[in-house]
Amino acid sequence: MLVRKAVITAAAPDQHTLPLQQLVDREGRNRTALQLIIEEVIGAGIEEICLVIRPGDQRAYVQSAGAQEGMLTFVEQQEPRGYGDAIARARDFVAAEPFLHLVGDHLYLSATDRRCARQLIEVAQEHDCAVSAVQATRENKLPDFGAIGGTHVPRQPHLYEVTAVLEKPTPTQAEQELIIAGLRSGYYQCFFGMHVLTPLVMEILAELLAEAGRRVTLSDALQRLAPRQKYLAYEVQGARYNIGAKYGLLMAQLALSLSGSDRDQILTELVELLASSRSGIR
Amino acid sequence: MLVRKAVITAAAPDQHTLPLQQLVDREGRNRTALQLIIEEVIGAGIEEICLVIRPGDQRAYVQSAGAQEGMLTFVEQQEPRGYGDAIARARDFVAAEPFLHLVGDHLYLSATDRRCARQLIEVAQEHDCAVSAVQATRENKLPDFGAIGGTHVPRQPHLYEVTAVLEKPTPTQAEQELIIAGLRSGYYQCFFGMHVLTPLVMEILAELLAEAGRRVTLSDALQRLAPRQKYLAYEVQGARYNIGAKYGLLMAQLALSLSGSDRDQILTELVELLASSRSGIR
Repeated sequence: MLVRKAVITAAAPDQHTLPLQQLVDREGRNRTALQLIIEEVIGAGIEEICLVIRPGDQRAYVQSAGAQEGMLTFVEQQEPRGYGDAIARARDFVAAEPFLHLVGDHLYLSATDRRCARQLIEVAQEHDCAVSAVQATRENKLPDFGAIGGTHVPRQPHLYEVTAVLEKPTPTQAEQELIIAGLRSGYYQCFFGMHVLTPLVMEILAELLAEAGRRVTLSDALQRLAPRQKYLAYEVQGARYNIGAKYGLLMAQLALSLSGSDRDQILTELVELLASSRSGIR
Repeated sequence: MLVRKAVITAAAPDQHTLPLQQLVDREGRNRTALQLIIEEVIGAGIEEICLVIRPGDQRAYVQSAGAQEGMLTFVEQQEPRGYGDAIARARDFVAAEPFLHLVGDHLYLSATDRRCARQLIEVAQEHDCAVSAVQATRENKLPDFGAIGGTHVPRQPHLYEVTAVLEKPTPTQAEQELIIAGLRSGYYQCFFGMHVLTPLVMEILAELLAEAGRRVTLSDALQRLAPRQKYLAYEVQGARYNIGAKYGLLMAQLALSLSGSDRDQILTELVELLASSRSGIR
Protein backbone atom coordinates (compact mmCIF):
# COMPACT_ATOMS: atom_id res chain seq x y z
CA MET A 1 0.00 0.00 0.00
CA LEU A 2 1.40 3.32 -1.12
CA VAL A 3 0.11 6.55 0.45
CA ARG A 4 0.58 9.45 -1.97
CA LYS A 5 -2.38 11.68 -1.22
CA ALA A 6 -3.40 13.76 1.78
CA VAL A 7 -6.71 15.35 2.74
CA ILE A 8 -6.64 18.30 5.15
CA THR A 9 -9.95 19.60 6.53
CA ALA A 10 -10.18 23.29 7.39
CA ALA A 11 -13.80 24.23 6.73
CA ALA A 12 -15.24 24.52 10.25
CA PRO A 13 -16.70 28.03 10.67
CA ASP A 14 -14.91 28.67 13.98
CA GLN A 15 -11.57 27.32 12.82
CA HIS A 16 -11.13 28.31 9.20
CA THR A 17 -8.63 31.10 9.93
CA LEU A 18 -6.35 28.88 12.03
CA PRO A 19 -4.19 27.67 9.11
CA LEU A 20 -3.50 31.33 8.31
CA GLN A 21 -1.95 32.05 11.71
CA GLN A 22 1.71 33.06 11.84
CA LEU A 23 4.25 30.99 13.76
CA VAL A 24 8.01 30.58 13.89
CA ASP A 25 9.20 27.03 13.18
CA ARG A 26 11.94 25.04 14.96
CA GLU A 27 14.55 26.45 12.60
CA GLY A 28 13.46 30.00 13.42
CA ARG A 29 11.69 30.67 10.12
CA ASN A 30 8.37 32.48 9.81
CA ARG A 31 5.71 30.01 8.77
CA THR A 32 1.93 29.98 8.63
CA ALA A 33 0.24 27.08 10.38
CA LEU A 34 -0.78 25.93 6.89
CA GLN A 35 2.85 25.80 5.77
CA LEU A 36 3.77 23.73 8.83
CA ILE A 37 0.95 21.26 8.08
CA ILE A 38 1.98 21.06 4.42
CA GLU A 39 5.61 20.47 5.43
CA GLU A 40 4.46 17.69 7.77
CA VAL A 41 2.73 15.80 4.97
CA ILE A 42 5.43 16.45 2.36
CA GLY A 43 7.99 15.18 4.86
CA ALA A 44 5.97 11.96 4.94
CA GLY A 45 6.26 11.49 1.18
CA ILE A 46 2.87 12.89 0.13
CA GLU A 47 2.67 14.15 -3.46
CA GLU A 48 -0.86 15.61 -3.74
CA ILE A 49 -2.82 17.52 -1.11
CA CYS A 50 -6.54 18.26 -1.03
CA LEU A 51 -7.67 21.10 1.22
CA VAL A 52 -11.35 21.12 2.20
CA ILE A 53 -12.23 24.77 2.87
CA ARG A 54 -15.11 27.17 3.33
CA PRO A 55 -16.35 28.96 0.21
CA GLY A 56 -14.35 32.15 -0.30
CA ASP A 57 -11.23 31.10 1.61
CA GLN A 58 -9.13 29.83 -1.29
CA ARG A 59 -7.34 33.14 -1.96
CA ALA A 60 -6.16 33.50 1.64
CA TYR A 61 -5.05 29.87 1.73
CA VAL A 62 -3.08 30.15 -1.50
CA GLN A 63 -1.31 33.24 -0.08
CA SER A 64 -0.52 31.33 3.13
CA ALA A 65 0.64 28.12 1.46
CA GLY A 66 4.01 29.43 0.32
CA ALA A 67 6.04 27.58 -2.28
CA GLN A 68 3.98 24.37 -2.15
CA GLU A 69 0.91 25.96 -3.69
CA GLY A 70 1.26 23.82 -6.83
CA MET A 71 0.58 20.62 -4.88
CA LEU A 72 -2.79 21.82 -3.62
CA THR A 73 -6.29 20.96 -4.80
CA PHE A 74 -9.08 22.96 -3.18
CA VAL A 75 -12.54 21.54 -2.51
CA GLU A 76 -15.24 23.68 -0.93
CA GLN A 77 -17.69 22.48 1.68
CA GLN A 78 -20.69 24.58 0.63
CA GLU A 79 -22.59 24.24 3.91
CA PRO A 80 -21.10 23.65 7.39
CA ARG A 81 -22.40 20.07 7.64
CA GLY A 82 -19.74 18.79 10.01
CA TYR A 83 -16.48 16.90 10.00
CA GLY A 84 -17.63 13.69 8.27
CA ASP A 85 -19.17 15.64 5.42
CA ALA A 86 -15.97 17.71 5.05
CA ILE A 87 -13.83 14.59 4.56
CA ALA A 88 -16.42 13.15 2.15
CA ARG A 89 -15.97 16.23 -0.10
CA ALA A 90 -12.55 14.81 -1.02
CA ARG A 91 -13.94 11.49 -2.31
CA ASP A 92 -13.25 12.27 -5.98
CA PHE A 93 -9.76 13.49 -5.08
CA VAL A 94 -8.72 10.30 -3.28
CA ALA A 95 -10.54 8.02 -5.78
CA ALA A 96 -9.45 4.42 -5.17
CA GLU A 97 -6.33 5.21 -3.16
CA PRO A 98 -5.56 5.15 0.56
CA PHE A 99 -4.83 8.61 1.93
CA LEU A 100 -3.35 10.49 4.83
CA HIS A 101 -5.85 12.69 6.66
CA LEU A 102 -4.91 15.59 8.94
CA VAL A 103 -7.15 18.11 10.65
CA GLY A 104 -6.29 21.73 9.83
CA ASP A 105 -6.25 22.92 13.44
CA HIS A 106 -3.48 20.71 14.84
CA LEU A 107 0.28 21.03 14.75
CA TYR A 108 2.56 18.07 15.34
CA LEU A 109 5.92 17.80 17.05
CA SER A 110 7.80 14.54 16.69
CA ALA A 111 9.91 13.19 19.54
CA THR A 112 12.14 11.31 17.09
CA ASP A 113 14.02 12.19 13.92
CA ARG A 114 11.01 11.09 11.83
CA ARG A 115 7.98 13.31 11.56
CA CYS A 116 4.71 12.09 13.10
CA ALA A 117 3.03 11.67 9.70
CA ARG A 118 5.96 9.63 8.42
CA GLN A 119 5.84 7.33 11.46
CA LEU A 120 2.14 6.75 10.81
CA ILE A 121 2.47 6.11 7.07
CA GLU A 122 5.28 3.62 7.64
CA VAL A 123 3.03 1.61 9.95
CA ALA A 124 0.13 1.77 7.46
CA GLN A 125 2.34 0.64 4.58
CA GLU A 126 3.86 -2.19 6.60
CA HIS A 127 0.49 -3.52 7.77
CA ASP A 128 -1.38 -2.60 4.59
CA CYS A 129 -4.44 -1.17 6.33
CA ALA A 130 -6.06 1.92 7.82
CA VAL A 131 -4.26 3.26 10.90
CA SER A 132 -5.22 6.08 13.25
CA ALA A 133 -2.54 7.90 15.20
CA VAL A 134 -3.41 7.98 18.90
CA GLN A 135 -1.92 9.38 22.07
CA ALA A 136 -2.45 8.37 25.69
CA THR A 137 -4.63 11.16 27.01
CA ARG A 138 -5.93 12.00 30.46
CA GLU A 139 -9.59 11.27 31.20
CA ASN A 140 -10.34 14.97 31.79
CA LYS A 141 -9.57 15.67 28.11
CA LEU A 142 -12.05 13.09 26.74
CA PRO A 143 -14.59 15.85 25.88
CA ASP A 144 -12.14 17.09 23.20
CA PHE A 145 -11.36 13.92 21.31
CA GLY A 146 -12.41 10.68 19.69
CA ALA A 147 -11.01 7.66 21.52
CA ILE A 148 -10.43 4.00 20.75
CA GLY A 149 -10.60 0.69 22.55
CA GLY A 150 -8.49 -2.22 21.36
CA THR A 151 -5.98 -4.96 21.98
CA HIS A 152 -2.21 -4.89 21.65
CA VAL A 153 -0.80 -6.30 18.43
CA PRO A 154 1.65 -9.01 19.62
CA ARG A 155 5.34 -8.03 19.52
CA GLN A 156 4.51 -4.59 18.07
CA PRO A 157 4.94 -1.93 20.71
CA HIS A 158 2.57 1.07 20.47
CA LEU A 159 0.28 -0.76 17.99
CA TYR A 160 -3.36 -1.72 18.64
CA GLU A 161 -6.07 -3.63 16.81
CA VAL A 162 -9.06 -1.30 17.14
CA THR A 163 -12.27 -2.83 18.54
CA ALA A 164 -14.26 0.30 19.41
CA VAL A 165 -14.31 3.98 18.49
CA LEU A 166 -16.26 6.59 20.44
CA GLU A 167 -16.47 10.31 19.72
CA LYS A 168 -15.98 12.42 22.87
CA PRO A 169 -17.01 9.62 25.26
CA THR A 170 -18.12 10.26 28.84
CA PRO A 171 -15.76 8.87 31.50
CA THR A 172 -18.31 6.10 32.18
CA GLN A 173 -18.53 5.10 28.50
CA ALA A 174 -14.75 5.18 28.24
CA GLU A 175 -14.33 2.99 31.34
CA GLN A 176 -16.83 0.42 30.02
CA GLU A 177 -15.75 0.24 26.39
CA LEU A 178 -12.29 1.72 25.87
CA ILE A 179 -10.04 0.15 28.49
CA ILE A 180 -6.67 -0.88 27.04
CA ALA A 181 -4.49 -3.29 29.00
CA GLY A 182 -1.26 -1.76 30.24
CA LEU A 183 -2.32 1.87 29.93
CA ARG A 184 -1.96 4.05 33.00
CA SER A 185 -5.18 4.26 35.02
CA GLY A 186 -7.35 7.21 33.98
CA TYR A 187 -5.72 7.40 30.53
CA TYR A 188 -7.24 6.51 27.17
CA GLN A 189 -5.90 6.31 23.63
CA CYS A 190 -7.38 9.38 21.97
CA PHE A 191 -7.06 10.49 18.37
CA PHE A 192 -4.02 12.51 17.43
CA GLY A 193 -5.76 14.31 14.51
CA MET A 194 -3.92 12.19 11.93
CA HIS A 195 -5.08 9.02 10.14
CA VAL A 196 -4.24 6.84 7.17
CA LEU A 197 -7.63 5.92 5.72
CA THR A 198 -8.78 3.57 2.97
CA PRO A 199 -11.36 4.18 0.22
CA LEU A 200 -13.78 2.05 2.29
CA VAL A 201 -13.88 4.91 4.85
CA MET A 202 -15.16 7.20 2.09
CA GLU A 203 -17.82 4.61 1.22
CA ILE A 204 -18.89 4.31 4.85
CA LEU A 205 -19.03 8.11 5.20
CA ALA A 206 -21.27 8.27 2.11
CA GLU A 207 -23.56 5.57 3.60
CA LEU A 208 -23.77 7.38 6.93
CA LEU A 209 -24.42 10.76 5.32
CA ALA A 210 -27.16 9.23 3.12
CA GLU A 211 -28.97 7.56 6.00
CA ALA A 212 -28.44 10.09 8.73
CA GLY A 213 -30.37 13.29 9.04
CA ARG A 214 -27.64 14.43 11.40
CA ARG A 215 -23.98 15.41 11.46
CA VAL A 216 -21.56 12.54 10.94
CA THR A 217 -18.14 12.41 12.58
CA LEU A 218 -15.08 10.50 11.43
CA SER A 219 -15.44 8.41 14.59
CA ASP A 220 -18.87 7.24 13.37
CA ALA A 221 -17.27 5.95 10.20
CA LEU A 222 -14.28 4.37 11.95
CA GLN A 223 -16.63 2.57 14.37
CA ARG A 224 -18.15 0.88 11.30
CA LEU A 225 -14.76 0.29 9.68
CA ALA A 226 -13.37 -1.84 12.52
CA PRO A 227 -15.61 -4.91 11.92
CA ARG A 228 -15.31 -4.72 8.10
CA GLN A 229 -11.59 -4.20 7.47
CA LYS A 230 -8.32 -4.49 9.35
CA TYR A 231 -7.93 -1.24 11.29
CA LEU A 232 -5.09 -0.39 13.64
CA ALA A 233 -4.17 2.46 15.96
CA TYR A 234 -0.58 3.56 16.45
CA GLU A 235 0.77 5.56 19.36
CA VAL A 236 2.95 8.08 17.55
CA GLN A 237 6.18 9.24 19.20
CA GLY A 238 5.45 12.92 19.45
CA ALA A 239 2.89 15.46 20.57
CA ARG A 240 -0.05 17.21 18.95
CA TYR A 241 -1.09 20.79 19.65
CA ASN A 242 -4.69 21.83 19.03
CA ILE A 243 -4.24 25.43 17.91
CA GLY A 244 -8.02 25.93 17.99
CA ALA A 245 -8.07 25.50 21.76
CA LYS A 246 -7.74 28.47 24.11
CA TYR A 247 -4.02 29.29 24.36
CA GLY A 248 -3.46 26.53 21.76
CA LEU A 249 -1.40 28.78 19.48
CA LEU A 250 0.67 30.00 22.42
CA MET A 251 1.44 26.48 23.62
CA ALA A 252 2.20 25.23 20.09
CA GLN A 253 4.58 28.14 19.52
CA LEU A 254 6.28 27.61 22.87
CA ALA A 255 6.67 23.89 22.19
CA LEU A 256 8.16 24.62 18.76
CA SER A 257 10.54 27.25 20.11
CA LEU A 258 11.65 25.29 23.15
CA SER A 259 12.60 22.30 21.01
CA GLY A 260 14.19 24.40 18.28
CA SER A 261 17.31 26.30 17.42
CA ASP A 262 16.25 29.45 19.29
CA ARG A 263 15.58 27.65 22.59
CA ASP A 264 18.15 29.64 24.58
CA GLN A 265 16.93 33.00 23.26
CA ILE A 266 13.32 32.11 24.10
CA LEU A 267 14.27 30.95 27.60
CA THR A 268 16.12 34.22 28.20
CA GLU A 269 13.20 36.37 27.03
CA LEU A 270 10.80 34.21 29.01
CA VAL A 271 12.70 34.77 32.24
CA GLU A 272 12.84 38.54 31.59
CA LEU A 273 9.10 38.58 30.97
CA LEU A 274 8.37 36.55 34.08
CA ALA A 275 10.51 38.95 36.12
CA SER A 276 8.69 42.02 34.81
CA SER A 277 5.12 40.73 34.60
CA ARG A 278 2.56 41.14 37.30
CA SER A 279 -1.06 40.15 37.46
CA GLY A 280 -3.92 42.57 37.86
CA ILE A 281 -2.72 45.56 35.83
CA ARG A 282 -4.59 46.92 32.88
CA MET B 1 -8.02 70.02 21.78
CA LEU B 2 -10.33 67.04 21.47
CA VAL B 3 -9.04 63.81 19.88
CA ARG B 4 -11.95 61.86 18.39
CA LYS B 5 -10.37 60.15 15.40
CA ALA B 6 -7.75 57.44 14.99
CA VAL B 7 -5.69 56.34 11.98
CA ILE B 8 -4.27 52.81 12.00
CA THR B 9 -1.81 51.83 9.27
CA ALA B 10 -1.74 48.19 8.17
CA ALA B 11 -0.79 48.29 4.50
CA ALA B 12 2.84 47.14 4.52
CA PRO B 13 3.17 44.06 2.28
CA ASP B 14 5.02 42.01 4.89
CA GLN B 15 2.76 42.95 7.75
CA HIS B 16 -0.77 43.17 6.38
CA THR B 17 -1.89 39.84 7.90
CA LEU B 18 -0.70 40.72 11.41
CA PRO B 19 -3.96 42.39 12.53
CA LEU B 20 -5.74 39.15 11.59
CA GLN B 21 -3.70 37.03 14.00
CA GLN B 22 -5.51 35.29 16.85
CA LEU B 23 -4.65 36.03 20.46
CA VAL B 24 -6.20 35.60 23.89
CA ASP B 25 -6.64 38.85 25.82
CA ARG B 26 -6.00 39.52 29.51
CA GLU B 27 -9.53 38.49 30.39
CA GLY B 28 -9.04 35.17 28.59
CA ARG B 29 -11.19 36.03 25.56
CA ASN B 30 -10.27 35.13 21.97
CA ARG B 31 -9.40 38.30 20.09
CA THR B 32 -7.73 39.16 16.82
CA ALA B 33 -4.83 41.59 17.03
CA LEU B 34 -7.12 44.03 15.18
CA GLN B 35 -9.75 43.76 17.90
CA LEU B 36 -7.13 44.46 20.57
CA ILE B 37 -5.94 47.56 18.68
CA ILE B 38 -9.51 48.76 18.21
CA GLU B 39 -10.22 48.22 21.92
CA GLU B 40 -7.10 50.22 22.76
CA VAL B 41 -8.31 53.26 20.81
CA ILE B 42 -11.95 52.97 21.89
CA GLY B 43 -10.74 52.77 25.50
CA ALA B 44 -9.05 56.12 24.86
CA GLY B 45 -12.31 57.77 23.81
CA ILE B 46 -11.91 57.52 20.03
CA GLU B 47 -15.17 57.60 18.04
CA GLU B 48 -14.05 57.07 14.42
CA ILE B 49 -11.28 54.84 13.11
CA CYS B 50 -9.62 54.90 9.70
CA LEU B 51 -7.74 51.76 8.66
CA VAL B 52 -5.19 52.17 5.86
CA ILE B 53 -4.96 48.76 4.16
CA ARG B 54 -3.70 46.98 1.07
CA PRO B 55 -6.17 46.64 -1.80
CA GLY B 56 -8.20 43.47 -1.35
CA ASP B 57 -7.80 43.16 2.41
CA GLN B 58 -11.02 44.86 3.51
CA ARG B 59 -13.12 41.66 3.68
CA ALA B 60 -10.65 39.89 5.97
CA TYR B 61 -10.35 42.99 8.18
CA VAL B 62 -14.11 43.39 8.51
CA GLN B 63 -14.35 39.73 9.56
CA SER B 64 -11.58 40.24 12.11
CA ALA B 65 -12.90 43.51 13.54
CA GLY B 66 -15.74 41.98 15.54
CA ALA B 67 -18.52 44.15 16.91
CA GLN B 68 -16.78 47.47 16.25
CA GLU B 69 -16.99 47.15 12.48
CA GLY B 70 -19.40 50.10 12.28
CA MET B 71 -16.74 52.54 13.54
CA LEU B 72 -14.34 51.71 10.72
CA THR B 73 -13.52 53.62 7.55
CA PHE B 74 -11.24 51.81 5.11
CA VAL B 75 -8.75 53.60 2.87
CA GLU B 76 -6.57 51.66 0.45
CA GLN B 77 -2.92 52.38 -0.23
CA GLN B 78 -2.85 51.41 -3.91
CA GLU B 79 0.92 51.02 -4.14
CA PRO B 80 3.34 50.10 -1.31
CA ARG B 81 4.91 53.59 -1.15
CA GLY B 82 5.95 53.39 2.48
CA TYR B 83 4.81 54.50 5.91
CA GLY B 84 4.52 58.26 5.33
CA ASP B 85 2.40 57.74 2.23
CA ALA B 86 0.15 55.30 4.14
CA ILE B 87 -0.62 57.90 6.83
CA ALA B 88 -1.17 60.57 4.16
CA ARG B 89 -3.96 58.38 2.63
CA ALA B 90 -6.06 59.29 5.68
CA ARG B 91 -5.83 63.07 5.09
CA ASP B 92 -9.47 63.42 4.01
CA PHE B 93 -10.59 61.28 6.94
CA VAL B 94 -8.88 63.42 9.59
CA ALA B 95 -9.68 66.73 7.81
CA ALA B 96 -8.93 69.60 10.19
CA GLU B 97 -8.84 67.55 13.41
CA PRO B 98 -5.99 66.21 15.53
CA PHE B 99 -5.88 62.42 15.52
CA LEU B 100 -4.47 59.43 17.31
CA HIS B 101 -2.19 57.30 15.14
CA LEU B 102 -1.28 53.69 15.87
CA VAL B 103 0.72 51.25 13.77
CA GLY B 104 -1.13 48.02 12.99
CA ASP B 105 1.70 45.71 14.02
CA HIS B 106 2.06 46.70 17.68
CA LEU B 107 0.15 45.68 20.78
CA TYR B 108 0.22 47.74 23.96
CA LEU B 109 0.14 46.72 27.60
CA SER B 110 -0.36 49.45 30.15
CA ALA B 111 1.37 49.30 33.51
CA THR B 112 -1.39 51.38 35.10
CA ASP B 113 -5.17 51.26 35.21
CA ARG B 114 -5.31 53.59 32.17
CA ARG B 115 -4.60 52.25 28.71
CA CYS B 116 -1.50 53.53 26.93
CA ALA B 117 -3.53 55.41 24.29
CA ARG B 118 -5.59 57.10 27.01
CA GLN B 119 -2.44 58.24 28.85
CA LEU B 120 -1.14 59.74 25.61
CA ILE B 121 -4.37 61.51 24.64
CA GLU B 122 -4.69 63.03 28.11
CA VAL B 123 -1.23 64.58 27.75
CA ALA B 124 -2.04 65.86 24.24
CA GLN B 125 -5.32 67.39 25.38
CA GLU B 126 -3.72 69.00 28.44
CA HIS B 127 -0.86 70.55 26.44
CA ASP B 128 -2.89 71.13 23.27
CA CYS B 129 -0.25 69.86 20.85
CA ALA B 130 1.14 66.87 19.01
CA VAL B 131 2.67 64.23 21.31
CA SER B 132 4.55 61.06 20.45
CA ALA B 133 4.59 58.18 22.90
CA VAL B 134 8.15 57.05 23.57
CA GLN B 135 9.89 54.40 25.61
CA ALA B 136 13.45 54.23 26.92
CA THR B 137 15.02 51.66 24.63
CA ARG B 138 18.43 50.00 24.58
CA GLU B 139 20.92 51.19 21.99
CA ASN B 140 21.03 47.75 20.33
CA LYS B 141 17.37 48.16 19.32
CA LEU B 142 17.87 51.51 17.52
CA PRO B 143 17.75 49.77 14.09
CA ASP B 144 14.05 49.01 14.72
CA PHE B 145 12.73 52.43 15.71
CA GLY B 146 12.49 56.14 15.25
CA ALA B 147 14.04 58.02 18.18
CA ILE B 148 13.86 61.53 19.59
CA GLY B 149 16.15 64.01 21.25
CA GLY B 150 14.75 66.65 23.57
CA THR B 151 14.66 68.44 26.87
CA HIS B 152 12.62 67.72 29.97
CA VAL B 153 9.47 69.80 30.40
CA PRO B 154 9.91 71.38 33.86
CA ARG B 155 7.91 69.77 36.67
CA GLN B 156 6.33 67.26 34.23
CA PRO B 157 7.83 63.84 34.74
CA HIS B 158 8.13 61.68 31.62
CA LEU B 159 7.45 64.63 29.31
CA TYR B 160 9.89 66.05 26.76
CA GLU B 161 10.01 68.98 24.35
CA VAL B 162 11.21 67.34 21.12
CA THR B 163 14.22 68.94 19.42
CA ALA B 164 15.26 66.18 17.02
CA VAL B 165 13.75 63.11 15.37
CA LEU B 166 15.78 60.45 13.61
CA GLU B 167 14.51 57.31 11.91
CA LYS B 168 16.55 54.22 12.85
CA PRO B 169 19.66 56.21 13.82
CA THR B 170 23.10 54.68 14.08
CA PRO B 171 24.58 54.58 17.61
CA THR B 172 26.92 57.43 16.60
CA GLN B 173 24.08 59.61 15.31
CA ALA B 174 22.08 58.86 18.43
CA GLU B 175 24.96 59.74 20.71
CA GLN B 176 25.54 63.05 18.91
CA GLU B 177 21.96 64.22 18.48
CA LEU B 178 19.59 62.32 20.76
CA ILE B 179 21.11 62.43 24.24
CA ILE B 180 18.50 63.16 26.90
CA ALA B 181 19.63 64.28 30.35
CA GLY B 182 18.88 61.79 33.08
CA LEU B 183 18.37 58.77 30.87
CA ARG B 184 20.39 55.67 31.64
CA SER B 185 23.58 55.45 29.60
CA GLY B 186 23.09 53.57 26.33
CA TYR B 187 19.34 54.19 26.32
CA TYR B 188 17.34 56.45 24.00
CA GLN B 189 13.72 57.52 23.83
CA CYS B 190 12.35 55.55 20.90
CA PHE B 191 8.89 55.68 19.40
CA PHE B 192 6.24 53.50 20.97
CA GLY B 193 4.18 53.18 17.76
CA MET B 194 1.55 55.61 19.01
CA HIS B 195 1.21 59.36 18.40
CA VAL B 196 -1.28 62.18 18.68
CA LEU B 197 -0.75 64.21 15.49
CA THR B 198 -2.09 67.51 14.23
CA PRO B 199 -3.36 68.41 10.74
CA LEU B 200 0.00 70.18 10.17
CA VAL B 201 1.64 66.71 10.13
CA MET B 202 -0.60 65.79 7.20
CA GLU B 203 0.44 69.01 5.44
CA ILE B 204 4.11 68.28 6.03
CA LEU B 205 3.70 64.70 4.78
CA ALA B 206 2.08 66.05 1.62
CA GLU B 207 4.98 68.50 1.13
CA LEU B 208 7.56 65.77 1.65
CA LEU B 209 5.78 63.33 -0.67
CA ALA B 210 5.50 66.03 -3.37
CA GLU B 211 9.18 66.98 -3.25
CA ALA B 212 10.75 63.60 -2.56
CA GLY B 213 11.28 60.94 -5.17
CA ARG B 214 11.77 58.58 -2.26
CA ARG B 215 9.91 56.92 0.55
CA VAL B 216 8.90 59.21 3.37
CA THR B 217 8.72 58.10 7.00
CA LEU B 218 6.70 59.61 9.80
CA SER B 219 10.02 60.56 11.41
CA ASP B 220 10.82 62.75 8.39
CA ALA B 221 7.61 64.67 8.95
CA LEU B 222 8.03 64.92 12.73
CA GLN B 223 11.57 66.24 12.25
CA ARG B 224 10.02 69.14 10.32
CA LEU B 225 7.16 69.52 12.79
CA ALA B 226 9.39 70.25 15.80
CA PRO B 227 10.54 73.74 14.67
CA ARG B 228 7.09 74.76 13.37
CA GLN B 229 4.71 73.74 16.15
CA LYS B 230 4.84 72.71 19.79
CA TYR B 231 5.64 69.01 19.79
CA LEU B 232 6.14 66.84 22.87
CA ALA B 233 7.12 63.26 23.61
CA TYR B 234 5.63 61.36 26.53
CA GLU B 235 7.08 58.26 28.15
CA VAL B 236 3.98 56.09 28.47
CA GLN B 237 3.65 53.83 31.50
CA GLY B 238 3.44 50.50 29.74
CA ALA B 239 5.07 48.32 27.15
CA ARG B 240 4.70 47.84 23.40
CA TYR B 241 5.06 44.55 21.58
CA ASN B 242 6.00 44.53 17.92
CA ILE B 243 4.08 41.51 16.66
CA GLY B 244 5.81 41.79 13.28
CA ALA B 245 9.16 40.95 14.84
CA LYS B 246 10.40 37.37 15.05
CA TYR B 247 8.70 35.75 18.06
CA GLY B 248 6.78 39.03 18.46
CA LEU B 249 3.39 37.33 18.57
CA LEU B 250 4.69 34.79 21.09
CA MET B 251 6.08 37.47 23.40
CA ALA B 252 2.96 39.63 23.10
CA GLN B 253 0.74 36.67 23.95
CA LEU B 254 2.94 35.68 26.88
CA ALA B 255 2.94 39.25 28.19
CA LEU B 256 -0.86 39.43 27.89
CA SER B 257 -1.36 36.07 29.58
CA LEU B 258 1.13 36.61 32.37
CA SER B 259 -0.54 39.90 33.35
CA GLY B 260 -4.05 38.55 32.95
CA SER B 261 -6.66 36.44 34.67
CA ASP B 262 -5.21 33.13 33.43
CA ARG B 263 -1.70 33.82 34.75
CA ASP B 264 -1.62 30.79 37.06
CA GLN B 265 -2.86 28.40 34.37
CA ILE B 266 -0.26 29.68 31.91
CA LEU B 267 2.53 29.38 34.46
CA THR B 268 1.50 25.78 35.19
CA GLU B 269 1.44 24.82 31.52
CA LEU B 270 4.71 26.63 30.93
CA VAL B 271 6.47 24.63 33.64
CA GLU B 272 5.07 21.35 32.24
CA LEU B 273 6.28 22.30 28.78
CA LEU B 274 9.72 23.28 30.05
CA ALA B 275 9.97 19.96 31.87
CA SER B 276 9.05 17.95 28.77
CA SER B 277 10.84 19.94 26.06
CA ARG B 278 14.27 19.17 24.75
CA SER B 279 16.30 20.76 22.03
CA GLY B 280 17.51 19.00 18.94
CA ILE B 281 14.56 16.73 18.14
CA ARG B 282 12.58 16.87 14.90
